Amino acid sequence: MQLSDCRVTIVGLGLMGGSLGLALMGEQACQEVTGVARRGETLRRAVEWGAIQWGTLDLVEGVKDADLVILATPVRTIIDLLGRISPHLKEGAVVMDLGSTKAAVARAMAVLPSRLQPVGGHPMCGRERAGIEAAEPDLYRGATFVLTPLERTSGEALSLAQDLVEAVGARPLILDPETHDGLVATTSHLPYLLAVALMGTLGEIGAKDERVYRLAAGGFRDTSRLASSEVTMMLDILLTNRSQICQKADLFCRSLTHLLSALQKEDEEILQQILIRAQRRREEMVLL
Amino acid sequence: MQLSDCRVTIVGLGLMGGSLGLALMGEQACQEVTGVARRGETLRRAVEWGAIQWGTLDLVEGVKDADLVILATPVRTIIDLLGRISPHLKEGAVVMDLGSTKAAVARAMAVLPSRLQPVGGHPMCGRERAGIEAAEPDLYRGATFVLTPLERTSGEALSLAQDLVEAVGARPLILDPETHDGLVATTSHLPYLLAVALMGTLGEIGAKDERVYRLAAGGFRDTSRLASSEVTMMLDILLTNRSQICQKADLFCRSLTHLLSALQKEDEEILQQILIRAQRRREEMVLL
Repeated sequence: MQLSDCRVTIVGLGLMGGSLGLALMGEQACQEVTGVARRGETLRRAVEWGAIQWGTLDLVEGVKDADLVILATPVRTIIDLLGRISPHLKEGAVVMDLGSTKAAVARAMAVLPSRLQPVGGHPMCGRERAGIEAAEPDLYRGATFVLTPLERTSGEALSLAQDLVEAVGARPLILDPETHDGLVATTSHLPYLLAVALMGTLGEIGAKDERVYRLAAGGFRDTSRLASSEVTMMLDILLTNRSQICQKADLFCRSLTHLLSALQKEDEEILQQILIRAQRRREEMVLL
Repeated sequence: MQLSDCRVTIVGLGLMGGSLGLALMGEQACQEVTGVARRGETLRRAVEWGAIQWGTLDLVEGVKDADLVILATPVRTIIDLLGRISPHLKEGAVVMDLGSTKAAVARAMAVLPSRLQPVGGHPMCGRERAGIEAAEPDLYRGATFVLTPLERTSGEALSLAQDLVEAVGARPLILDPETHDGLVATTSHLPYLLAVALMGTLGEIGAKDERVYRLAAGGFRDTSRLASSEVTMMLDILLTNRSQICQKADLFCRSLTHLLSALQKEDEEILQQILIRAQRRREEMVLL
């Protein structure tokens, strides 16, 4: 099946779902884009802004005729939705999600009826702002978009998912769900925990001396930015990727302890080596 | 003495010194701005871009006629420069610095000849890019600019320093050096260490699976941005504020451990409380 012939239904019209709709509609990439949301106001805006052709509050009504369903909600809601929609989907329908962790979603996808074609997805282009108000048609452009097919996923279904990724300007990267979760534990979930713990430290200091807030300049704001992420989404991420996150946090703590120990000992040579290595590595990363 | 009557000499024409010169010259805030640098090329550019009226590679030549000397180099160089310039300065000259830690500088200022007027300064507007090439006239605009007078600092000298801060559009905040160092340990130095340790963790993971770099999106880049800071500057900061930094890092580690322990136990209620508190606190901070 060609993407251009597909009826696509996006369930959840927040930042990710809304932006996906805007990109698909803007590119005229598929036959129809339908939206399912919990609030009429969201549907009204999504239609007005051109993120969907039409929308409904009724989940079953929204997905029953879809060739491709995209679940764009927090992870634990995705898992719940998979069970709720599966009896109502068309034969051969492709079911994709945009959840930030993939192993738990893959386990829920594995038990879907065999007439359905599940494939996991995770676009690496979040923002800390949420909701359809924050949606933008170029959000996906240039971003890495991970796809996590299951063993049962057909080549045709994966190919359709890849077409969708490319239609919105993103670059597909195929990974197995566990590998994905391990890598994003380092690149997304650990940085979030650091930002949260840093805000905790600032709060403790600030309770004794409010002037600390006047000294929190650009550097602090950047390091703590992820602490502004949507809590519902992050809670689902943390709880569905717990062991990988704790393992990476452990690596981080060892790295920090090594650094602090060099500082404590005033070992300027080691300290300088660590700082230079981090600086170079970051410059290389930014150039990638 | 009025700032408008002052001959000002800036020693060190990097991001901070160069931007200060651009702002002072742009506002015609003083009688003359002289620059001292280590390389002729830097002086040439600083004159061309309007950061100084004239410049010299000869430290003594540059400072001997100044009413106000501003040391804009890494902290340990500031401490070294204080000793080297003091015999050559005019009676009553005000000696200020822009160093990122203040207690070590204050100790070096305390032993200056009594005919000089030392006052510490620290503008909270760094960037991770360095050098005169990165200088901009509006760098200081709206920033908090900490002043750390010594007991011996006259009201007139402090008032001159405040005039300078206001002339470049910054907001003065008077603190004692130890308080300053404690607060910036939380707001600047700790975030830097977290960014460095996070790059260390990424490096370890990346050595096993290079794809991790493709997954390092905007969130990771922001959290790790400070790891790109200039190493010479940061090394001086860390080594001159060691005990305060280690103390704040200890608070941070407790905050992180508390968070990880709630995650390990899957204590959703506590976890949600911590995440919401961090989110609110950051929103409040950004609004300040």
